Amino acid sequence: MDNAMQPEDTPELRALYQGFKDNHLNPLWTQTGDLMPLHPRPKAVPHVWRWADLLPLAERSGELVPVGRGGERRAIGLANPGLGGRAYVSPTLWAAIQYLCPGENAPEHRHAQNAFRFVVEGEGVWTVVDGDPVRMSRGDLLLTPGWRFHGHHNVATEPMAWIDGLDIPFSQQMDVGFFEFGSERVTDNATPNYSQGERLWCHPGLRPLSHLQDTVSSPIGAYRWEFTDQALTQQLLLEDEGMPATVEQGHAAIRYVNPTTGGDVMPTIRCEFHRLRAGAETPERREVGSTVFQVFEGQGAVVMGGETHRLEKGDMFVIPSWVPWSLQAETQFDLFRFSDAPIMERLNFMRTAVEGQ
Amino acid sequence: MDNAMQPEDTPELRALYQGFKDNHLNPLWTQTGDLMPLHPRPKAVPHVWRWADLLPLAERSGELVPVGRGGERRAIGLANPGLGGRAYVSPTLWAAIQYLCPGENAPEHRHAQNAFRFVVEGEGVWTVVDGDPVRMSRGDLLLTPGWRFHGHHNVATEPMAWIDGLDIPFSQQMDVGFFEFGSERVTDNATPNYSQGERLWCHPGLRPLSHLQDTVSSPIGAYRWEFTDQALTQQLLLEDEGMPATVEQGHAAIRYVNPTTGGDVMPTIRCEFHRLRAGAETPERREVGSTVFQVFEGQGAVVMGGETHRLEKGDMFVIPSWVPWSLQAETQFDLFRFSDAPIMERLNFMRTAVEGQ
Amino acid sequence: MDNAMQPEDTPELRALYQGFKDNHLNPLWTQTGDLMPLHPRPKAVPHVWRWADLLPLAERSGELVPVGRGGERRAIGLANPGLGGRAYVSPTLWAAIQYLCPGENAPEHRHAQNAFRFVVEGEGVWTVVDGDPVRMSRGDLLLTPGWRFHGHHNVATEPMAWIDGLDIPFSQQMDVGFFEFGSERVTDNATPNYSQGERLWCHPGLRPLSHLQDTVSSPIGAYRWEFTDQALTQQLLLEDEGMPATVEQGHAAIRYVNPTTGGDVMPTIRCEFHRLRAGAETPERREVGSTVFQVFEGQGAVVMGGETHRLEKGDMFVIPSWVPWSLQAETQFDLFRFSDAPIMERLNFMRTAVEGQ
Amino acid sequence: MDNAMQPEDTPELRALYQGFKDNHLNPLWTQTGDLMPLHPRPKAVPHVWRWADLLPLAERSGELVPVGRGGERRAIGLANPGLGGRAYVSPTLWAAIQYLCPGENAPEHRHAQNAFRFVVEGEGVWTVVDGDPVRMSRGDLLLTPGWRFHGHHNVATEPMAWIDGLDIPFSQQMDVGFFEFGSERVTDNATPNYSQGERLWCHPGLRPLSHLQDTVSSPIGAYRWEFTDQALTQQLLLEDEGMPATVEQGHAAIRYVNPTTGGDVMPTIRCEFHRLRAGAETPERREVGSTVFQVFEGQGAVVMGGETHRLEKGDMFVIPSWVPWSLQAETQFDLFRFSDAPIMERLNFMRTAVEGQ
Repeated sequence: MDNAMQPEDTPELRALYQGFKDNHLNPLWTQTGDLMPLHPRPKAVPHVWRWADLLPLAERSGELVPVGRGGERRAIGLANPGLGGRAYVSPTLWAAIQYLCPGENAPEHRHAQNAFRFVVEGEGVWTVVDGDPVRMSRGDLLLTPGWRFHGHHNVATEPMAWIDGLDIPFSQQMDVGFFEFGSERVTDNATPNYSQGERLWCHPGLRPLSHLQDTVSSPIGAYRWEFTDQALTQQLLLEDEGMPATVEQGHAAIRYVNPTTGGDVMPTIRCEFHRLRAGAETPERREVGSTVFQVFEGQGAVVMGGETHRLEKGDMFVIPSWVPWSLQAETQFDLFRFSDAPIMERLNFMRTAVEGQ
Repeated sequence: MDNAMQPEDTPELRALYQGFKDNHLNPLWTQTGDLMPLHPRPKAVPHVWRWADLLPLAERSGELVPVGRGGERRAIGLANPGLGGRAYVSPTLWAAIQYLCPGENAPEHRHAQNAFRFVVEGEGVWTVVDGDPVRMSRGDLLLTPGWRFHGHHNVATEPMAWIDGLDIPFSQQMDVGFFEFGSERVTDNATPNYSQGERLWCHPGLRPLSHLQDTVSSPIGAYRWEFTDQALTQQLLLEDEGMPATVEQGHAAIRYVNPTTGGDVMPTIRCEFHRLRAGAETPERREVGSTVFQVFEGQGAVVMGGETHRLEKGDMFVIPSWVPWSLQAETQFDLFRFSDAPIMERLNFMRTAVEGQ
Repeated sequence: MDNAMQPEDTPELRALYQGFKDNHLNPLWTQTGDLMPLHPRPKAVPHVWRWADLLPLAERSGELVPVGRGGERRAIGLANPGLGGRAYVSPTLWAAIQYLCPGENAPEHRHAQNAFRFVVEGEGVWTVVDGDPVRMSRGDLLLTPGWRFHGHHNVATEPMAWIDGLDIPFSQQMDVGFFEFGSERVTDNATPNYSQGERLWCHPGLRPLSHLQDTVSSPIGAYRWEFTDQALTQQLLLEDEGMPATVEQGHAAIRYVNPTTGGDVMPTIRCEFHRLRAGAETPERREVGSTVFQVFEGQGAVVMGGETHRLEKGDMFVIPSWVPWSLQAETQFDLFRFSDAPIMERLNFMRTAVEGQ
Repeated sequence: MDNAMQPEDTPELRALYQGFKDNHLNPLWTQTGDLMPLHPRPKAVPHVWRWADLLPLAERSGELVPVGRGGERRAIGLANPGLGGRAYVSPTLWAAIQYLCPGENAPEHRHAQNAFRFVVEGEGVWTVVDGDPVRMSRGDLLLTPGWRFHGHHNVATEPMAWIDGLDIPFSQQMDVGFFEFGSERVTDNATPNYSQGERLWCHPGLRPLSHLQDTVSSPIGAYRWEFTDQALTQQLLLEDEGMPATVEQGHAAIRYVNPTTGGDVMPTIRCEFHRLRAGAETPERREVGSTVFQVFEGQGAVVMGGETHRLEKGDMFVIPSWVPWSLQAETQFDLFRFSDAPIMERLNFMRTAVEGQ
């Protein structure tokens, strides 16, 4: 929207504008285009971070920066180049690489912000969520929904890196954050293969009679790679057999959901996993809201806003609101995805445009 | 409610009552107690059917009664002794033993009524639901929600028996039934180990992105015994570890749910599986609505309305509305359960009373 | 469904059938057609009750039958000729004419059954619902949802008649009824023009901040004729102005709703009011579930199952499940309607077929 | 949260930090306290704008600034002193005074942002929403939910001022805005007393059968002062009679709701009206999210963050997230309120603390 029609600059007008300023007022007619654009014009930009850059910096942090009360986590946030250097990967989302050395403990705390972790490689860390130790292994999605105490400890002989996703920017801008310190060290040093939450809830289509109350966030602490991989494999096999099982030809995908509702795992963050057959391409899409991907396996490319970026394992990229994007797979191409779509859907702001539809 | 206060019997009153009759009217004051009891006074009675009786009769039917278009199914309905000989196990529910000989085909049809099958023993039958062949094996719960075409065929060398549960009495009394014949024989003779629905949906907490629309009934055609058994085993182990995982001490239980909503598998029928530790007893309960159990494994007893019935594998029993009941386990005691609780809950008639609560 | 394919009658078969009988069993193949019809085949029949018959019988009851504890209400139920003389207007619904003489008190009680009253003429009675006295006047719909204490008293010098609607047949067949006696006389003898519930809730689009919890049934005790009439008048005016405000040409209608949800007033009963312009006809409809109408004003006719019945003020008629029906208006034609549609919708059994759609 | 535990400043650390910067990364441990505060620490501050200042500046704008395509509206936004001069009254909300001279037309447009108007005094303007002309009068709340075309025109001989509320700051920061120009002048010059939406929907508890589909936002275009005043008057009378009708002693309040759901009028904005008896005080409250009040009538005060501000008719004030506040009434004290509470509730971030509870 242009502001073609502006009043003439006169001493009277200047006096009026000074009156606005003195009274903490600001007229719409001098700023409409910026405030109410024809379509989303995000300050955030599409950007790719390379695992080849991220991992060495995380390793170096492991050598130089302690983990402990105060700083809380050795987490390095992806700072969208359009957002002024703040550790916001988008206006709503935080994405970081976290790194924990053998024997280290990230102290327990809790916060209103919703969080997850996704493991692109490595193992040996257990995250303890409200007293329930959860193993972290390659391909797993781990949840720590808002206001649950959580800490991490590395019981292996190797350091481990993973990515964190949170709604920190949203929480900070909307002034909704609460935070509380917990135990200095994780409260349970056990290293079970499966957490209590998984043992109670990870039986397909079966709900414990002791837990019939729906929960705001998923009670599943860990979504294991084994199941994700099977689900995607089956979708592609079903597609081969002529069943409508994939999103589009050659493109299998699952959404991680809260088994008490069938909806998103947390109120602000959607998590998905996508698999493209070698050679597959997705149509160009625009969506309201921002999304982050991490390549889990394979080679391919993303086209964002007309620019093509070749991608390798571990690479991460962000697509801001309404920026057109598509994926191309050279090999079988596996990607983890998270986004703020639940915010947009719950507040009725979601819109999607797909090329050719 | 008693009708203590009745008008005096006079010629005038008789004339009035004749006037009612002539005009298809019926006064409340002559019938209140029956119409509006102080608490549910079901005509249906608690009753036990013995597997030792059911199975031989089913076998004999296999010899004498053909399966085919018209009769449709070799199903023998449990007729509650209080309900006048109709094949109603309760005012809402139908329960039957169905029997299929080697090579037989139960022709395809569909109906508004919701149906499931549960297999207490045997295998070799596939049920084909809207073209998707579903294996039936011991401990499995199989769904055919309203208006889906389904037929069965036995590809084994042995006959097979299982139980059917439907909402036929409800449908009949409420006049909601529709029925349509389908193919004379099952439309797909394949005998896959897992149905398409399972392959798409039976990955815990993962939802196919191609199926984001919630469905009225569960898209899972088969709930396999393997998962049910694991879930119950884990609940008892978690109880041992001090976690709140069981319904009550020594009593593990799962509800089968629709993964798109976390709610009941079908709009009118709830399905559950219960496991008691040897020696466990449940407190006495009264619930609005009727429920049917089948013993899957182990020995124990049910106390219904004060009377104790010892139970063996395959035995079935019905508990009418508001009749007090409790279970007692001699050995580890496994029971499949179904009920009309979704009707009562959706229409806000559910009430529960548990002894000592 | 016919049972074309029946086993041959042999001594062995008879022995088998005797075995069924001895064990409280009943085979499906001898009864399928009845249990699972191709479409609803209700025992209930379409029927019209004339106000010219109902009112004199009610008046005569006023002379001969006392009102008091035990009989509880001077209510005369409409007994569908197809339902064996029981006071069931349909398998789910009760409809009655109730009559109260000057100075009489119908004692307080409560029950799980949901109830309403609709006033086709007269005034002078207050119904006291959970202590809140509610005036009853011509054209008003009054609610007493399940488990609320209620009694009536007539403070006028004339007797008063009105109709009651309840879900008694449903409750009785489903065994969900509870009943409790209350005060012998109404607990509050005040005769305010508007009840507390109306004063709190009857402001369009405004919700008291003190009552933000949704309620199962509507908190509005009385839906006044004044508002109903205005709403219908406006719909026809808007239709004249070219707005899509009516159900179909010349047919205005409102549904009475629960303001906390926008849904039906009670979990089992839907209430509506319909107005047809003189000369209007509705297309032929079939619906699952049963419905009852009372003519409030005007002349017209109903066609049910092909038979035409001319109608006058106060006449009542019932349309069983899936029976085709349509309305014809000679004059402006006002009808109150209630049905069991919430049952059918909540349990996913609703189907509708409209001629030409 | 303090960052007590920071690594020692060394050349190696500086190199690491430079590496972060070069790769668009930002470590959590240097910023935790700011990103994840112990409780909301809004940049926005509590502030009062005086009607005595607002109205003259609006009047002067009427003389100096034209209304028309481009600037679109003669609206002057309240700029929270803590938010850097942008016309954000809070991080989520926009509040403005809008001014329209006799004969003027504010051209039609639509946008994804949700909007309402509230009229503290004056009349003569009609706002045309998707072709439906809606009269604006003192005490009325007028809605223009997202993506509905709307324009205003003043048909009176006097200028008119009112306030606008929108979710512009939220939309801008979350990148969800879309905008489309419509007609240069309002599409319908009629000046009916009641809009079509009101005529269809403003009948308490009655829903048009032609509109059974729930809508995301309220279909009511205007909530009239007459109804609001009656609702509040009745609440105080009911309180006098001992009924639980008010929020707390002496404090009546209504929420404006969507009649199709009973929930908030729009997905992001809650609107309420509060009335305090003379002498009443509310307990101190803290709430997540921000809220704006405008005094409609009477004198009183608000205490925000410990500071007391005396208030007159038309004065507006904002309370940022988690700032403690309470109201004090000298005379009967009427206030319109709007807030972003639906955002907080739908995303599960709402928390409330009330003194003494």
